[in-house]
Amino acid sequence: MTTIDRLVEAVRDMEFDLQETITILERTPAVVRELLHGLPETWTASNEGPETFSPFDVVGHLIDGEETDWIPRIRIILAQGSDRRFVPFDRFRSQGAAETLSQRLEKFASLRKANLKTLQELEVTPAQLKLTGEHPELGTVTLAQLLATWAVHDLTHLAQINRVMAKQYKAAIGPWVRYHPLLTR
Amino acid sequence: MTTIDRLVEAVRDMEFDLQETITILERTPAVVRELLHGLPETWTASNEGPETFSPFDVVGHLIDGEETDWIPRIRIILAQGSDRRFVPFDRFRSQGAAETLSQRLEKFASLRKANLKTLQELEVTPAQLKLTGEHPELGTVTLAQLLATWAVHDLTHLAQINRVMAKQYKAAIGPWVRYHPLLTR
Repeated sequence: MTTIDRLVEAVRDMEFDLQETITILERTPAVVRELLHGLPETWTASNEGPETFSPFDVVGHLIDGEETDWIPRIRIILAQGSDRRFVPFDRFRSQGAAETLSQRLEKFASLRKANLKTLQELEVTPAQLKLTGEHPELGTVTLAQLLATWAVHDLTHLAQINRVMAKQYKAAIGPWVRYHPLLTR
Repeated sequence: MTTIDRLVEAVRDMEFDLQETITILERTPAVVRELLHGLPETWTASNEGPETFSPFDVVGHLIDGEETDWIPRIRIILAQGSDRRFVPFDRFRSQGAAETLSQRLEKFASLRKANLKTLQELEVTPAQLKLTGEHPELGTVTLAQLLATWAVHDLTHLAQINRVMAKQYKAAIGPWVRYHPLLTR
């Protein structure tokens, strides 16, 4: 691939695609499980400092999204009622819940599966993707933007889990920390 | 967990642990496969701009590490010969290789499995973990640091794959980009 090809590729904005978005959302539970299942707690319960998420916390946060955020917001937009304001997403809802990591992994997988079934049953049309709701802070957003954000939210939290884990070995890698700026960010 | 607990946790440096490191290294091929297998090329071949890696490129780079870097460096350290300098890691070795993503995923999994078998057979002792080699740029490094870096290298490249994928929807998420600083970094 030439430099020009790469530039063209980098500036092209990828269009929202419902089926591809579902394909990404479907795989997240398996990715998280492969990453974390059976790991010692030193790896899954450590975080990046005060008020930051450990991998265990991230899985709880993903569960919160499944239980309170994505599908309810999709329904608000599709209903097109007079009040289309979303309930704010409580990012710390799952904190302090008495669950094991293994329970969280299982719960997330089953909620995600059920929610994607619901989404498929809604049979969203291209026209409906342009319908809007009101985000409490961001203002008017479309259904397509909400669905794209669901996938991006998965991907950035997966990146976070990997980063948080990598940071636990910041001292252990010695001089190699120079090649891993992610660990000191 | 109190704020003090979190602070204490954050400042504690995790000690290198050979068995835990292997546990992390073992799962990477499955994580990458769950993330990428069967995805459209728009997701796996797009990158972050000129001279950056796509998810496909990252898998090639992980293969290069298995074929040329980690085990050869471990052997140089364990041999303790008169010349303990490592060969520089060619980060772009796999570029242009005529392989499909599916072939790369399979190749990475089989190389990693064989290399971890080799590592186990070397029966590295705690004393050997302190032996050193000479990195072409970083100078003297220990075997423990090399092994920790192998795991960190996996984790940071997994984070990269997730970030690169998320960026493809930077435009699609509309105003939500404000909540995802990772996409504009």
